[in-house]
Amino acid sequence: MSSLKRAVILLSGGLDSATCLAIARNQGFETHTVAFRYGQRHQYELQRAQLISEKLDATSHRIVDIDLAQFGGSALTDAAIDVPKSETVESIGEAIPVTYVPARNTVFLSLSLAFAETVDAKDIFIGVNSLDYSGYPDCRPEFIQAFEQMANLATKAGVEESQKLNIHTPLIHLTKAEIIARGMELGVDYGLTLSCYDPGDAGRPCQHCDACLLRARGFATNGIQDPSLVSG
Amino acid sequence: MSSLKRAVILLSGGLDSATCLAIARNQGFETHTVAFRYGQRHQYELQRAQLISEKLDATSHRIVDIDLAQFGGSALTDAAIDVPKSETVESIGEAIPVTYVPARNTVFLSLSLAFAETVDAKDIFIGVNSLDYSGYPDCRPEFIQAFEQMANLATKAGVEESQKLNIHTPLIHLTKAEIIARGMELGVDYGLTLSCYDPGDAGRPCQHCDACLLRARGFATNGIQDPSLVSG
Repeated sequence: MSSLKRAVILLSGGLDSATCLAIARNQGFETHTVAFRYGQRHQYELQRAQLISEKLDATSHRIVDIDLAQFGGSALTDAAIDVPKSETVESIGEAIPVTYVPARNTVFLSLSLAFAETVDAKDIFIGVNSLDYSGYPDCRPEFIQAFEQMANLATKAGVEESQKLNIHTPLIHLTKAEIIARGMELGVDYGLTLSCYDPGDAGRPCQHCDACLLRARGFATNGIQDPSLVSG
Repeated sequence: MSSLKRAVILLSGGLDSATCLAIARNQGFETHTVAFRYGQRHQYELQRAQLISEKLDATSHRIVDIDLAQFGGSALTDAAIDVPKSETVESIGEAIPVTYVPARNTVFLSLSLAFAETVDAKDIFIGVNSLDYSGYPDCRPEFIQAFEQMANLATKAGVEESQKLNIHTPLIHLTKAEIIARGMELGVDYGLTLSCYDPGDAGRPCQHCDACLLRARGFATNGIQDPSLVSG
């Protein structure tokens, strides 16, 4: 067995979590990735998560099934609610968007905590960032802090062991442009990642949802072409 | 639509959560019950949860699938780990038992939070009690308090609304005997409930696991025969 410290990394198939995995690996962790089949509109992100996990040499990859669509209430799990589209990044609103999935990060982190406890990992990485938390309540630093505190009371580790559980959010104070710059340094192939909320056939990004617009600005700021938009 | 305040109640099919439902109803809530198919050793408790929900007039009942057995690590989800059996309640140990399921209450409460958010409920009831929390970290009052704090930062309610999310634990400081006495007052039919970790055919309690022994003592203290042990 490896002598490296183990970490669980939440992987979505998108740009942020791929960068997060590269950072965890760079910090010397043995990485165990987990992706969620939660009733999302499309399965492309799960394929990408698997691919990213392999390319970045994660020790294990796991897909967990949890049907959040049964609760409804989000454009990301309910085909009857349209994903908002805009022409420019400036038109993204300030309110919690309809793409918010009720309690999603709470559920994902809880399941990652269960997984971490069984593989004896004390470190969990999640790629929430400063751009997301303007809209999603469960991407804010104070939420992550509260989750970590709760996790340390919830588990065997918190009772029987001295070693604290840590929720790492290495991207939380970075802009999308800074995340991309960091990922490029670490050799992340962003051609594998998919950020779009509403991709077309073969996972082609729509280029008009909030996620596509934020991503486009991030690459533009770095003066780099998005490799996922280069036609093969 | 009813004008009552809505509450989500976690139901396991056991004695505690049935009492919890009766208390929520008695407090005037419109009750929405949720049970979890999490990879437990037997399905009897899910049948009982459904039955209890109907008999206590819950407005809705829902079974959520979340496979915690895939993570392993507990006698309650892994047939290869034996459920401990004893002759007397005094032989139950002090350490976290092998029937602990990693992060189970965290996962169940998180999913209940997602459900509560979509049905606009601000109140969640869970039947953790003072007997359980001697062994399970995620049954302790400090865990529940930390979860509630986290939940208020995780959700739309915590950001956009003034009304706080509450995690109710009406049994937390009661002994098993006190829980049973309260339930009898409220007309709970304990003949419907199943506490056993390892029941035989037709859900017959083993009478030797920790849950059976604690239950037996609770009925004995009240001087009542356990109606679930009366052969039909």
